[in-house]
Amino acid sequence: MENTEIYVPEPAIGRLPWYLACVSRLRAQGVEYVSSTAISQELNVDASQIAKDLSYLNIKGKTRIGYEVAQLERGLLDFLGFHRDHKAVMMGVGSLGAALIADSGLSRYGLNIVAGFDVDPALVGTEIDGTPIYDLAELPARREALGAEIAVIAVPVESAAEVAELCVNSGIKALWNFTPFHIRTSPDITIQNTSIYAHLAVMYNRMKSK
Amino acid sequence: MENTEIYVPEPAIGRLPWYLACVSRLRAQGVEYVSSTAISQELNVDASQIAKDLSYLNIKGKTRIGYEVAQLERGLLDFLGFHRDHKAVMMGVGSLGAALIADSGLSRYGLNIVAGFDVDPALVGTEIDGTPIYDLAELPARREALGAEIAVIAVPVESAAEVAELCVNSGIKALWNFTPFHIRTSPDITIQNTSIYAHLAVMYNRMKSK
Repeated sequence: MENTEIYVPEPAIGRLPWYLACVSRLRAQGVEYVSSTAISQELNVDASQIAKDLSYLNIKGKTRIGYEVAQLERGLLDFLGFHRDHKAVMMGVGSLGAALIADSGLSRYGLNIVAGFDVDPALVGTEIDGTPIYDLAELPARREALGAEIAVIAVPVESAAEVAELCVNSGIKALWNFTPFHIRTSPDITIQNTSIYAHLAVMYNRMKSK
Repeated sequence: MENTEIYVPEPAIGRLPWYLACVSRLRAQGVEYVSSTAISQELNVDASQIAKDLSYLNIKGKTRIGYEVAQLERGLLDFLGFHRDHKAVMMGVGSLGAALIADSGLSRYGLNIVAGFDVDPALVGTEIDGTPIYDLAELPARREALGAEIAVIAVPVESAAEVAELCVNSGIKALWNFTPFHIRTSPDITIQNTSIYAHLAVMYNRMKSK
């Protein structure tokens, strides 16, 4: 049962894709076993931290041999859900939304954007890379047939609250929020904020102090 | 002197764009003063946290009146650097890199992508939305004339280490890393990781446990 999985802290989950990138490269190179020390040197993360992070996934290395590379890669992929199909709708297909639809990287990581929604009559009825664009107001009627549980929020910040509410009322279970707006909703909705503009602010600030 | 600014913790910087979005909306509505309690209710952040975050910027509210909206907006914009021009190069103009060049949102937040670099001969010599694309190998020769201190890393993960090194050796001061690769470099280089795929993993995980 997936629901019985233990709670893994967000910083640990955030490191797992680093380990995955590392072991995928090792497997491509034909390496069969890897120690947490070797991963540690590669990624500049404490070996004990790596062992702890992987223990959440019930992945344990063998003394003196380390982790089996293929098994570790499978375990990470399984846990991260990158090889499962997660259907999503794109709310707002302006510059960022259209860019994310066109980014084939997302589908490689399991995110399948099945439709876009926008208020712009010039966009409604068109397709972006084969993805149909519908009127925003049609989300409640179309959500279930699309099978999407995730909504990517890429609308202008002033519409974020209203669009988030529309999504939740339409049966969406998770909001991936690219706006700087702090969405509040019921506790059974998953919210993931990816405020790339906040990251820009952090980077500008750190540059100044160097 | 900008360099004498005090160190602001990353979570605080991450909240500032929320405040900015909120006060920009208030100013557009013609509101003149706002209390931290009102911002708190809007954003679901503790009023004391807001007051503390803003005190890093030397912005203090007046008793019973609160913050002057226009002044608060200016102070936030100033600190966040969104209205300054930060020249950047895009390393890798595949799906994500091209998408980020096309995202006009970045320039609204002060990031000016002046050129793209790629190894694909089909891309070199072309333009994306008016941005010229050069051969990756030309970065060392072109960096200074372009005036770019920031490199956005959007190459395939297996090239990330090599491309980061090329950037640093070419005089780049900050790397905005969109790959899941954990870049290691000298301490005077600013690294900002925006691993949107790691955010996907966190979202998938949280959805399962609900």
